[in-house]
Amino acid sequence: MAELVEIIDPMDPRLDDFRDLTVADRRPDRPGGRGLVIAEGVVVVQRLLASPYPIRSLLGVRRRYHELAGDLADVAVPYYCASAEVMAQAVGFHLNRGVLATADRVQFADAGSLLARSHTVAVLEGIGDHENMGSIFRNAAALGVDAVLLAEGCADPLYRRSVRVSMGNVFKVPFAVLHGWVDDACSMLHAHGFTIAALSPAADAMPLFTAGLAGARVALLLGSEGPGLTDQSIAASDIRVQIPMADGVDSLNVATAGAIAFAAVARQR
Amino acid sequence: MAELVEIIDPMDPRLDDFRDLTVADRRPDRPGGRGLVIAEGVVVVQRLLASPYPIRSLLGVRRRYHELAGDLADVAVPYYCASAEVMAQAVGFHLNRGVLATADRVQFADAGSLLARSHTVAVLEGIGDHENMGSIFRNAAALGVDAVLLAEGCADPLYRRSVRVSMGNVFKVPFAVLHGWVDDACSMLHAHGFTIAALSPAADAMPLFTAGLAGARVALLLGSEGPGLTDQSIAASDIRVQIPMADGVDSLNVATAGAIAFAAVARQR
Repeated sequence: MAELVEIIDPMDPRLDDFRDLTVADRRPDRPGGRGLVIAEGVVVVQRLLASPYPIRSLLGVRRRYHELAGDLADVAVPYYCASAEVMAQAVGFHLNRGVLATADRVQFADAGSLLARSHTVAVLEGIGDHENMGSIFRNAAALGVDAVLLAEGCADPLYRRSVRVSMGNVFKVPFAVLHGWVDDACSMLHAHGFTIAALSPAADAMPLFTAGLAGARVALLLGSEGPGLTDQSIAASDIRVQIPMADGVDSLNVATAGAIAFAAVARQR
Repeated sequence: MAELVEIIDPMDPRLDDFRDLTVADRRPDRPGGRGLVIAEGVVVVQRLLASPYPIRSLLGVRRRYHELAGDLADVAVPYYCASAEVMAQAVGFHLNRGVLATADRVQFADAGSLLARSHTVAVLEGIGDHENMGSIFRNAAALGVDAVLLAEGCADPLYRRSVRVSMGNVFKVPFAVLHGWVDDACSMLHAHGFTIAALSPAADAMPLFTAGLAGARVALLLGSEGPGLTDQSIAASDIRVQIPMADGVDSLNVATAGAIAFAAVARQR
């Protein structure tokens, strides 16, 4: 059980992981120049505790310790218990979710091992917005996507805002960086038996719901709202699929378009 | 053509419509205690100009005036032309979209007249979040929803944040308030031949994609993410439909769930 440790001084060095959180995402002193993994709120903290990321510590009000008791049973790090005021002073803003946890970043899987055990994956190109990234993970978890693969130009799924918007599903849906985009990465997808289906507004793309995506392993390729997928990634795809739309290009948010595509693939299985 | 009027003083009273925009949404001096309709950016301003809302004036940098020339041809109000700095001082923050327009609020249709000319409508209950409201309109425009009907507890679609998130589609997709929710409003929906399909995570709800929504007039009933639909509105529905989900209740954002439902209805037509 995580040990309950009372903290009354917001400057206590044991809270350094949580200090000035609005800037803590970028820490040049951390490996890779990136910050810790930070989870906010009961549900997101639960998902972090259930993930393979090594927990460093928790900070929260007393009530949340009791709410999380079941999740903390096998946790060997301290739960720093503080008042809402002390928390706000350490963190730098008022935190209405009442509990935080930090963990170290580690990489758990390479793209190949994820592909070997997946049936539906999302491949993201140029998704640079942290909120869109978080939403895509939330939708992937809900709609049966087994893994997310990051091609080029993608935001960090473990950035604090991505974590929050994903509702902690960045800890649940495995992801990996795809190296050698476009050619080598697409060869690997094909070697694992995946059909690469690019979501595209092009008029000659196949209607999503009748594209015949049943059975096969499917890699849904999503690009950013503005520029869309690159010509190279379109060319490397096996098929292009479109969501029939009243309003043309860019009329759906990329995470929303992805959700419709995820649901359509699940439907065709 | 909208007349180009140069403004060099940020305190010029002709800019009063645009002053301190972050608080301008709530103006007790305006009918109903609500603010003007405010559009930001070229695309949203274009949609406002194409809507029936009576334009009051525009404020923007010179370059945007030329970009909007085609849209301004029949517009009889002034385009106040100012530098980015003067705009920022009048508006209260730096506006990177470079053009604004204001219009008066007016009501264009009642629910009955919208229903008479619609095949698919979204009925919203308890959607209190302005961003979700905006996203629902954006998705409705893209996915062929003819009108949005607001039951109880809904945010204002013409609030500035809703307008922005909708990409101006609140000006494009007609909406009306549904009076007499639940009983009278549902009677009206039935009188117009609509099947009321409540989107619900209940295990015994019908799978969305095979719910047989082809042909009929369909009213998709969406509730908020937290509490969901009320018991009364569930009881008043003809069928309950669900999105098959890996992750149970509340795992999709309401606008995303709505988008999948809109796409599924469009697919079944």
